[in-house]
Amino acid sequence: MDVGDASLAEAGERRIDWALRSMPVLRAIGARFDASRPLEGLKIAACLHITAETAVFVGALKAGGAKIALAASNPLSTQNDVAAALRSYDVAVHARAGVDRDTYYRHIHQALDIGPDIVLDDGCDLVNTLHTERVELLDGVTGGCEETTTGIIRLRQMAAEQALRFPVVAVNDTRTKRMFDNRYGTGQSTLDGIVRATNTLLAGRTVVVAGFGFCGRGVAERAKGQGSRVIVTEIDPVKALDASLQGYEVLPMAEAARAGDLFITVTGNRDVIRGEHLAEMRDGAILANAGHFDVEIDVRALEDMAETVHLGVRPHTDEYVLADGRRLLLLAEGRLVNLTAAEGHPAAVMDMSFSAQALAVAWLAEERSRLAPGVYDVPAEIDAEVARLKLGAAGIEIDALTAVQADYLRSWRFGS
Amino acid sequence: MDVGDASLAEAGERRIDWALRSMPVLRAIGARFDASRPLEGLKIAACLHITAETAVFVGALKAGGAKIALAASNPLSTQNDVAAALRSYDVAVHARAGVDRDTYYRHIHQALDIGPDIVLDDGCDLVNTLHTERVELLDGVTGGCEETTTGIIRLRQMAAEQALRFPVVAVNDTRTKRMFDNRYGTGQSTLDGIVRATNTLLAGRTVVVAGFGFCGRGVAERAKGQGSRVIVTEIDPVKALDASLQGYEVLPMAEAARAGDLFITVTGNRDVIRGEHLAEMRDGAILANAGHFDVEIDVRALEDMAETVHLGVRPHTDEYVLADGRRLLLLAEGRLVNLTAAEGHPAAVMDMSFSAQALAVAWLAEERSRLAPGVYDVPAEIDAEVARLKLGAAGIEIDALTAVQADYLRSWRFGS
Amino acid sequence: MDVGDASLAEAGERRIDWALRSMPVLRAIGARFDASRPLEGLKIAACLHITAETAVFVGALKAGGAKIALAASNPLSTQNDVAAALRSYDVAVHARAGVDRDTYYRHIHQALDIGPDIVLDDGCDLVNTLHTERVELLDGVTGGCEETTTGIIRLRQMAAEQALRFPVVAVNDTRTKRMFDNRYGTGQSTLDGIVRATNTLLAGRTVVVAGFGFCGRGVAERAKGQGSRVIVTEIDPVKALDASLQGYEVLPMAEAARAGDLFITVTGNRDVIRGEHLAEMRDGAILANAGHFDVEIDVRALEDMAETVHLGVRPHTDEYVLADGRRLLLLAEGRLVNLTAAEGHPAAVMDMSFSAQALAVAWLAEERSRLAPGVYDVPAEIDAEVARLKLGAAGIEIDALTAVQADYLRSWRFGS
Amino acid sequence: MDVGDASLAEAGERRIDWALRSMPVLRAIGARFDASRPLEGLKIAACLHITAETAVFVGALKAGGAKIALAASNPLSTQNDVAAALRSYDVAVHARAGVDRDTYYRHIHQALDIGPDIVLDDGCDLVNTLHTERVELLDGVTGGCEETTTGIIRLRQMAAEQALRFPVVAVNDTRTKRMFDNRYGTGQSTLDGIVRATNTLLAGRTVVVAGFGFCGRGVAERAKGQGSRVIVTEIDPVKALDASLQGYEVLPMAEAARAGDLFITVTGNRDVIRGEHLAEMRDGAILANAGHFDVEIDVRALEDMAETVHLGVRPHTDEYVLADGRRLLLLAEGRLVNLTAAEGHPAAVMDMSFSAQALAVAWLAEERSRLAPGVYDVPAEIDAEVARLKLGAAGIEIDALTAVQADYLRSWRFGS
Repeated sequence: MDVGDASLAEAGERRIDWALRSMPVLRAIGARFDASRPLEGLKIAACLHITAETAVFVGALKAGGAKIALAASNPLSTQNDVAAALRSYDVAVHARAGVDRDTYYRHIHQALDIGPDIVLDDGCDLVNTLHTERVELLDGVTGGCEETTTGIIRLRQMAAEQALRFPVVAVNDTRTKRMFDNRYGTGQSTLDGIVRATNTLLAGRTVVVAGFGFCGRGVAERAKGQGSRVIVTEIDPVKALDASLQGYEVLPMAEAARAGDLFITVTGNRDVIRGEHLAEMRDGAILANAGHFDVEIDVRALEDMAETVHLGVRPHTDEYVLADGRRLLLLAEGRLVNLTAAEGHPAAVMDMSFSAQALAVAWLAEERSRLAPGVYDVPAEIDAEVARLKLGAAGIEIDALTAVQADYLRSWRFGS
Repeated sequence: MDVGDASLAEAGERRIDWALRSMPVLRAIGARFDASRPLEGLKIAACLHITAETAVFVGALKAGGAKIALAASNPLSTQNDVAAALRSYDVAVHARAGVDRDTYYRHIHQALDIGPDIVLDDGCDLVNTLHTERVELLDGVTGGCEETTTGIIRLRQMAAEQALRFPVVAVNDTRTKRMFDNRYGTGQSTLDGIVRATNTLLAGRTVVVAGFGFCGRGVAERAKGQGSRVIVTEIDPVKALDASLQGYEVLPMAEAARAGDLFITVTGNRDVIRGEHLAEMRDGAILANAGHFDVEIDVRALEDMAETVHLGVRPHTDEYVLADGRRLLLLAEGRLVNLTAAEGHPAAVMDMSFSAQALAVAWLAEERSRLAPGVYDVPAEIDAEVARLKLGAAGIEIDALTAVQADYLRSWRFGS
Repeated sequence: MDVGDASLAEAGERRIDWALRSMPVLRAIGARFDASRPLEGLKIAACLHITAETAVFVGALKAGGAKIALAASNPLSTQNDVAAALRSYDVAVHARAGVDRDTYYRHIHQALDIGPDIVLDDGCDLVNTLHTERVELLDGVTGGCEETTTGIIRLRQMAAEQALRFPVVAVNDTRTKRMFDNRYGTGQSTLDGIVRATNTLLAGRTVVVAGFGFCGRGVAERAKGQGSRVIVTEIDPVKALDASLQGYEVLPMAEAARAGDLFITVTGNRDVIRGEHLAEMRDGAILANAGHFDVEIDVRALEDMAETVHLGVRPHTDEYVLADGRRLLLLAEGRLVNLTAAEGHPAAVMDMSFSAQALAVAWLAEERSRLAPGVYDVPAEIDAEVARLKLGAAGIEIDALTAVQADYLRSWRFGS
Repeated sequence: MDVGDASLAEAGERRIDWALRSMPVLRAIGARFDASRPLEGLKIAACLHITAETAVFVGALKAGGAKIALAASNPLSTQNDVAAALRSYDVAVHARAGVDRDTYYRHIHQALDIGPDIVLDDGCDLVNTLHTERVELLDGVTGGCEETTTGIIRLRQMAAEQALRFPVVAVNDTRTKRMFDNRYGTGQSTLDGIVRATNTLLAGRTVVVAGFGFCGRGVAERAKGQGSRVIVTEIDPVKALDASLQGYEVLPMAEAARAGDLFITVTGNRDVIRGEHLAEMRDGAILANAGHFDVEIDVRALEDMAETVHLGVRPHTDEYVLADGRRLLLLAEGRLVNLTAAEGHPAAVMDMSFSAQALAVAWLAEERSRLAPGVYDVPAEIDAEVARLKLGAAGIEIDALTAVQADYLRSWRFGS
């Protein structure tokens, strides 16, 4: 086991303990797993971000009876103290912050050494390694889960080429995840990151939100809720129309560039803010990215246009002084501002995502013998169950259909 | 032709003229059709609500080169003045308000007498008549459109039994329709109907919205926007959670019944407000329904509980006095309050729905020879085109993908 | 007594009955007055709008023991059926809709014939008549109330010239009135009037609100709450800054004129929308006024610019076609759109205003012997009492100061 | 001069430079002062918080020609690096973080040694010292400004006892300050502090805001804007009614205690959350104070009820475990959460407050010979001027009255 500094375990425990408070759904699932042991005897190899929330997730799987080996899905995101604390859970952890590529893959191999029945992946590196370098283990693997869009894309290609050898659940696209993670999680944490970096007043500022998908909608709502005037840019006419019908001003970026005090990109595309836009911006304009990759703001163009750069005029805030004296402020070097300048999604958000995944693993354990190799959606009932548990944890009751109502809906479905 | 009172034509023209102002998208499509004549020589039999907005739609089809015969899809909704005015469009109109069932079906037969190439339906009665009583015409029919959910359900059954003889486009479920019609149209017009009926102040009132689908969301947003405190009831945990995350209080109806000043049902189900709920309500509570059918509020239970009923204490407002003296106010007899007490959807809303349908007819004219019998979704591009035209009409410009961006998105789709 | 058509009494009673439901505070004050008889034996001459809500107010005064003679403060606003119904309250009513100026003043004299102890005025015409033509009655008058800003101004002038012979309470400027009447009453009813007149969709429309006082704020909030994009124009930099900090776009009218779909003036000033602005507006722009006088939109300029005018293209909607073909839509001829095209303030709003006035009359009855001639503010405690009763009627409880807290506040007030 | 560590000057300069960017109004006033020199030759003794924003303010006064000696108004708030940097401004600074009471007063004496023409105070300690221990300087002092409510109260007492020897402007209560500072500044920074301390998700949480003054309103708006369900508690019925009319649920604290996830006190009173409330709260409830003093939450009661206390489970977050296992989380030990866990008001907020004060000093310099001893309001024109400069800095233009409009308003003011 490679866990960096074992003495950090106590700090890790505190961090996990804090996450636990905001993860009542996953706690409830853990308790249920503890009673019903749906994963009894299963060996799981997992490649995930090693964070406090992941530790709570792993705890639930263990409560269900699984034996787990864990590698990091990203060497930068590993919280060493949490990795240390996971030892007390009797989990084989192969992860350390800041390792090189070789060590990264060695860790994945070490996790696979458990001889998994089920694999959990976040980006498809573990599943890929399994299909290419550890084929001897493939016969034992009866199912998997994948967390990211990127991973799903790779898996679908494998399935299309009939290379995929077991069923995989795409735990990325659930309604609860979309709601919590994209809209409410990204919305809050993006503004949080910007305020921590700049301590700027949002009321009365003109905020340009580039992109009106689920994440962009969340960011726009939160900015409006802080008293900002929000302008939306889009390339999709249906989303642009929706933004307009919600009362936002919709402009092309070329015009928005002249009006904005604060620019937030959240499109999933590159070069959303380009040199031609930077050239139009006001002195003091702030640039932040909330999209997954750091390609949305053309930082190279900004560097080329700047006569002087002052790094770190505030934490995570760099100032670019243009030839005409205007100063543009780039946050977090154009990388995800909510993760860099704030703390990313609140634990309450991860509670939903990991709960869906825990139930997906249990469902997979139950159904895997009946499933052909391929990529599967999370069953709708799992979404409903997670929402139901979350409502219960918040003390919110809802109505149930009466027998008469259930009949009515059925009959309506079958004809008028 | 059976058009009631022909002298009404002038009033009908004024009504159509007013609708035209708020239907720029359909006007633009009409102009485009006038130039390209995509429906040249086609005979269309249509069974639709005969309203000013429908007249604008019919005008666009005629501009496209079609010859049209029209029957009413509902005898109550026919605007006789519009029917009269349609004569000046050279449309064969078979419709009059308040006809009996025999006349209703006679009108459908008369419309079918045109010998249609394409049929447009709203509830499937025309298509049904065609398949059962006018089978001699079936060989000539090469495609159709259906507007309602109910009609789609009947068509899918026909398709499942291989009884359906031509391709039909389901023009009901488009993104633009869902946005405009359900969320913004129903949202505004429902509150409008309630205020016209009661002139009640909404600020500071507790409004209970039963159902958080697209329509319920629209109603909840508008009530919140008027300064009401909004409580949502639901049976679906995912929707309930979404309501909660948007800041609404979520309660079972049994508890909401005690808290509400104004109740709005918009669920698509029956008996949403029942005797047990009525028994708990405050003196002066107002009951309104925004769902399609008048079954959401159990009016029979209300009648049974009432000692006295005062009909028409205000327009569209009846008072039910219970044994203990509490007075409940039922609006529009529990029927759609936005249509009964206000004017239904603004023309701007119908602009989107009919524009999608007009483009669907043109697409059908182009593609019908390549389509097997069955039910088809509206192509996504039509949604985008309607949104694009609507943005254009509102003077709103949006961004376009650069070549580099388009490449990036494509590559992202094919792997990381 | 001059009450028009006495047979209308029954319709009037129904109208009053409806108002009563939404006036729980005034009902509670009436019940309290009935027990304590604070106005026992007092003769009151009142000059007020004769509406259902006024009838409820008069009923409360009578319950308090007063004998009342009533004249109309505006010949156009008299509801004849309510005037008829007031007879059953044993009130001497001198009012009829549509009378000429001579009759108007004759009615005021007839009301004064009661030989009042206290006078209630709305615009100062009764008080003025009293001081100029009925000076023989002045010795008997011990106090008065005035409802309008205009009346207050005239009274202050009289006081400054030492012409005013008794104390008058300015019931216009109370916190509860400002809140209910200006912000929430005007806000809702203005949008209501516009939608009734045009059935236009507000979501996604650009609404220009001219003036950001209490009324303008209410209108802007309601428009935002309907999904409109709101632009504010102002001449006062502090109000403009406040609008900006609340997230509204602030522009000069010259620029807003080009951007707006719907214009609402609510400034208290004249010529807010002038020819130079009309010249810039989009085809189809809608013009509405929510300010007290019909001078805010320069209708004369609009008439001069129009080549053709189509009156009544919708109820309360006139179309002005300019030389270049653009069509501007003027609502309610530029007069108060909420009173003309809708029903003015909901009864719940008048409940607050008249409740404050009823308590002011009782306070005056108690204190008048101790008050020198002059204009007095409504005591703050009356505002608090009205709010307290309103909360009680709505079933809302609030906290009370503990003894320790009351001490703390006192000590804090007297030094640190 | 006592300036702690002079080597910190560079860090202080950077801090001041950052503040300068968000203080365009004060910069403009500084530039104007530099040209017109309204304070030429005046000696000013000031007792203020020594922060970056204060440094910008002092810079503006110096630009106006003043010579300044500065002491700290609070020993804890002094930013030593800023104090160091102020030397380069040639300001006599007598301040260091963490000094004892004797040193605190010695610093005030040292500042007074300048022999001031004008004094600036924040809490009245300098003015008090002047009137009691440095009476020999009183003849030279021709005017002053006081920043806080507490100071104003003390000054009014002095004035009432005819002890006050010169005119003082109460720069605390301006409309722009109320807007920026109380509503928007406190609103944003309070939520910011809570999120930094806990990283909790605000969407869907029930937030109880105790107090609905300007600050409470700001906090409630921001919480609502983050997707929280907001409950308001109040003791003033008018404010409670206003909250209700804005759509907030209003409850007594005894009931709100059971419903809330997060409690924020902002009343100006003590013991707003008491043992009886703590006893009812849910497990995991978070307690934060945004009122000036740390007496709003009864921390002693919380300590008494707790079986165990875990300090610092997160930064600025202490956990109190009650006998029944419930855990309550107290932020910032019940002190101002926006200053303790976040960075207090953004510089944009202080820009307004200090700008009003700078203009007040200039006005005082001009008018002081005409003013008797006493407490004076800031002239309304100063508020307007600050708002005008702020709008200008944000690039916002507004309308100006035409001559006709100005006449109309005048005539309306003088009679109808």
